[in-house]
Amino acid sequence: MVKIEKPTLLLDESKVKRNISRMVQKANRCGVRLRPHFKTHQSATIGEWFRAQGITSITVSSVDMALYFAHHGWDDITIAFPVNWLEIAKLNHLAQTIRLHLLVESVETGQFLAAQLHHPASIWLKIDTGYGRTGIPWTEKQKIIEVANAVAAASHLTLTGLLTHAGHAYGPTNKAQATDLYHETVTRLQSARDSLAYPGLLLSLGDTPTCTLAETLTGIDEIRPGNFVFYDYMQAYHGVCTPDDIAIALACPIVARHPERQQLLIYGGAIHLSKEHLTLPNGHFHFGALALPTESGWSDPIPNAYVSRLSQEHGQVQADPAFIEQCKIGDWLLVLPIHSCLTANLRQAYLTLTSEVIPMAGIL
Amino acid sequence: MVKIEKPTLLLDESKVKRNISRMVQKANRCGVRLRPHFKTHQSATIGEWFRAQGITSITVSSVDMALYFAHHGWDDITIAFPVNWLEIAKLNHLAQTIRLHLLVESVETGQFLAAQLHHPASIWLKIDTGYGRTGIPWTEKQKIIEVANAVAAASHLTLTGLLTHAGHAYGPTNKAQATDLYHETVTRLQSARDSLAYPGLLLSLGDTPTCTLAETLTGIDEIRPGNFVFYDYMQAYHGVCTPDDIAIALACPIVARHPERQQLLIYGGAIHLSKEHLTLPNGHFHFGALALPTESGWSDPIPNAYVSRLSQEHGQVQADPAFIEQCKIGDWLLVLPIHSCLTANLRQAYLTLTSEVIPMAGIL
Repeated sequence: MVKIEKPTLLLDESKVKRNISRMVQKANRCGVRLRPHFKTHQSATIGEWFRAQGITSITVSSVDMALYFAHHGWDDITIAFPVNWLEIAKLNHLAQTIRLHLLVESVETGQFLAAQLHHPASIWLKIDTGYGRTGIPWTEKQKIIEVANAVAAASHLTLTGLLTHAGHAYGPTNKAQATDLYHETVTRLQSARDSLAYPGLLLSLGDTPTCTLAETLTGIDEIRPGNFVFYDYMQAYHGVCTPDDIAIALACPIVARHPERQQLLIYGGAIHLSKEHLTLPNGHFHFGALALPTESGWSDPIPNAYVSRLSQEHGQVQADPAFIEQCKIGDWLLVLPIHSCLTANLRQAYLTLTSEVIPMAGIL
Repeated sequence: MVKIEKPTLLLDESKVKRNISRMVQKANRCGVRLRPHFKTHQSATIGEWFRAQGITSITVSSVDMALYFAHHGWDDITIAFPVNWLEIAKLNHLAQTIRLHLLVESVETGQFLAAQLHHPASIWLKIDTGYGRTGIPWTEKQKIIEVANAVAAASHLTLTGLLTHAGHAYGPTNKAQATDLYHETVTRLQSARDSLAYPGLLLSLGDTPTCTLAETLTGIDEIRPGNFVFYDYMQAYHGVCTPDDIAIALACPIVARHPERQQLLIYGGAIHLSKEHLTLPNGHFHFGALALPTESGWSDPIPNAYVSRLSQEHGQVQADPAFIEQCKIGDWLLVLPIHSCLTANLRQAYLTLTSEVIPMAGIL
């Protein structure tokens, strides 16, 4: 068993590799390219586990993350974030050295890249298929045409396709709902594409709930899920994965007991887990599920036990009296995080169950 | 003006020094020791600004933070967190090298330190005066006596006093409410002390709302506020400080515009600001206020403009049409963070308005 002194993000390597394998197999079976989003793990080491399973193209969420993975040998990278004009120098460096894919959703940004990017790049039109965060609304056919034309006017920019993120898939869901949402999203992307006269445009979408649950992935060319590498308690709570699929957990020392109110205090707070939470049917916040260490990793989630409040370093655990009784100061517990991307980003390193430290990119 | 490429945490050094000065003056005027909590800034450089104003003793929230500041010349440190048994080796190192203050709230931990800590330490009983997070409830006189006796039984442990954190002060407040809460907290701490036969026990409390707003700080010996060094929009929203007192702001590039729904998309998300938020009267979440860069720093908050949604790197800004109209892709805005402690922790560095980089402790 690993040695824990302070909040430590444990990683079950076998679960990570199993999660990767399943998504690779599904993409292969469906005949779509898997371009996994590496923002979840942000680690060159874990990137190699993807490469070992045949992955050659990736997605990142920032220019600096692209630079990090380019430095670690990835040469086909999509920055799935609207082009930030203020980082044009770094974008020029990347476009000169790797096959760089950028997202464009405005005529201004198309014209900016035409004038300021001096090397070839692949451009995807960012389409909003209903999430409402950013992108050209799929119904705005005239704007889609104008942005496409602004891109196509520049000889060094290749209009590759249309891309969306169905972030509204991160709600309560099941196979039927996910399949319906998948088909709705694909239909909207196809409709947006149909408004354009450019031949051969590809379609890319990707979120973990949809890519995990949808029965088949037809009608598109590329998927970009990221969270599936670890999953998390949010995904398990919503039925996207099983708790056993969750591949990271924060080990937290028990520092105080309050059995009179069925509570423990753990060393593990907002700077370790993030403030992401579920809201339970009774209105209470849920900042993570609890598990116990085992010889081979960690147990199933403890029924009725959860992190009920967080401050900077303090985590308050609510649980049944029998569980509180068996927990002693000086022991440690595991918290299955609500949102693995944010938890990993806060910790910047993983500890495997065989006590190897896996570094991350650093603060990006 | 500073040069911004990506989300960058700006720090107004003059505001920080003014915030420090005001709290130092108030503590001096009230005759209490100011032992500021350094978890907010986590920076040796900013620590020196406190030292220059006469501060010699500090509070931190973790053993590693104590090691960091001890390394930077601080020799009187309170770790304001229940003793984590699993870090006893580091605690022994600290107790051997500095004047170390620890919090004890259980007989078990008192006995643990009696047996496992091999150097002198100052012990504070952690009292819960109503926050309900941790500590011995102030009404539990018998338990207070038992824990005090467990500490006093060890010759190398000095029972110094009783300490509380009135975290429930972080609600809507004003001078009268804060003064009332202050007096209630002091009365409860004194009542807890009165149950003990040990002479000369000190009282320590401290949170930014109370220490800022309470008219005078009587009846106690020490205050430990931390957030006041920067304040934040949460404190301004609740009337604890003015917006002009907020000393840090996250500079965020504008990457997309959605005037049809009065929105902008900025590069600045949950990994930059944290997911801490206010809930507005209409039920909407508020993840930060907006300001514009000026020659000397940043403007007052823009009325009706706020960060309304966050994902990992995306920030969605909601604002009036006239403000949206003047914001262009490639410009940058400032976000006044909801919770400066969590935002600073995520960034791990500050950029002053004269373009100096101020490092932080690193991931602790």
